[in-house]
Amino acid sequence: MKIKKITIAIIISTMILACNQNKSTMKETTQELTTIFPKGEKGSSDLFTGNAYPTALVDADSIYNTLVGNVYFEPGARSHWHSHPAGQILIITDGIGYHQIEGKPIEIIKKGDVVKCPPNVKHWHGASADVGLQQLYIIPNTEKGIVQWKEAVTEEQYVINNSNHKCPKRFKRTNRCPCLLV
Amino acid sequence: MKIKKITIAIIISTMILACNQNKSTMKETTQELTTIFPKGEKGSSDLFTGNAYPTALVDADSIYNTLVGNVYFEPGARSHWHSHPAGQILIITDGIGYHQIEGKPIEIIKKGDVVKCPPNVKHWHGASADVGLQQLYIIPNTEKGIVQWKEAVTEEQYVINNSNHKCPKRFKRTNRCPCLLV
Repeated sequence: MKIKKITIAIIISTMILACNQNKSTMKETTQELTTIFPKGEKGSSDLFTGNAYPTALVDADSIYNTLVGNVYFEPGARSHWHSHPAGQILIITDGIGYHQIEGKPIEIIKKGDVVKCPPNVKHWHGASADVGLQQLYIIPNTEKGIVQWKEAVTEEQYVINNSNHKCPKRFKRTNRCPCLLV
Repeated sequence: MKIKKITIAIIISTMILACNQNKSTMKETTQELTTIFPKGEKGSSDLFTGNAYPTALVDADSIYNTLVGNVYFEPGARSHWHSHPAGQILIITDGIGYHQIEGKPIEIIKKGDVVKCPPNVKHWHGASADVGLQQLYIIPNTEKGIVQWKEAVTEEQYVINNSNHKCPKRFKRTNRCPCLLV
């Protein structure tokens, strides 16, 4: 009888473990970023810091005058500073990242957000330190030019997730500080 | 002893059922379309057949000259025929649907696809009969105008999923016929 009881206990424990393993796999899957487009090749270190994967979706031509592409930024990855003669629209399809216009505070960008950066304004964008970013970019009016690349974003400029970071008041009000998001 | 055996059998059966329920929930979740943007209000029946939910993301202005939005089409829903004075770019973020330029065969569009429709060309787009569609639209050069709406797409025009449908040769070659996809 004792052996039978032990056998039953082992069977039940195994099944509980199996069930929990299912739940754990499910959680890991939902934490991954959604991938819509091919990942593409790793972007050049002349243009990006860290692992960023740009993929062209629409090449510029004289009919639509519009360039469209996707960039997957791994956590910590970001573009160098750059500007667009006709501006740029970013559409965030998953993850959490940062966008900064020179001289302004870093903005948090996340799934569903749309960001406009005006013509000839220096900016950079990329993933947060802990969560990656999937972003579409749209460059309109390409007859005016596409992009002018500048210097890399230093670690000091990319400080928002620094362990010494204290949430600025504007984030506390909106609960959008990365300390709370990631 | 017999009662004990029955009790054990019941416990084990219940746990197997519980495990399978987990798996089944997981499957249902992954079959749902990914939602990136707010669903928005149901589109007017003057512009759409069935349940379509358009959401504006970027309004046209004189700097970017670009309109961007998302439409979620439930299965069977589609736009009316329409044209754009400066053309349109569609980016499919999830699901399966159709796009047709007047006088040409229906194209199957699905997650990751990019479609260009030239200026002043009559077209329609929407979901397949059995699977919904999430699509971004980009209208460039809005100074030339945005959209000219025309008549509804009839059931006869929306025939690709008709039970009498036979895969055309071009789909057989590429395995992209909706008979195989949906």
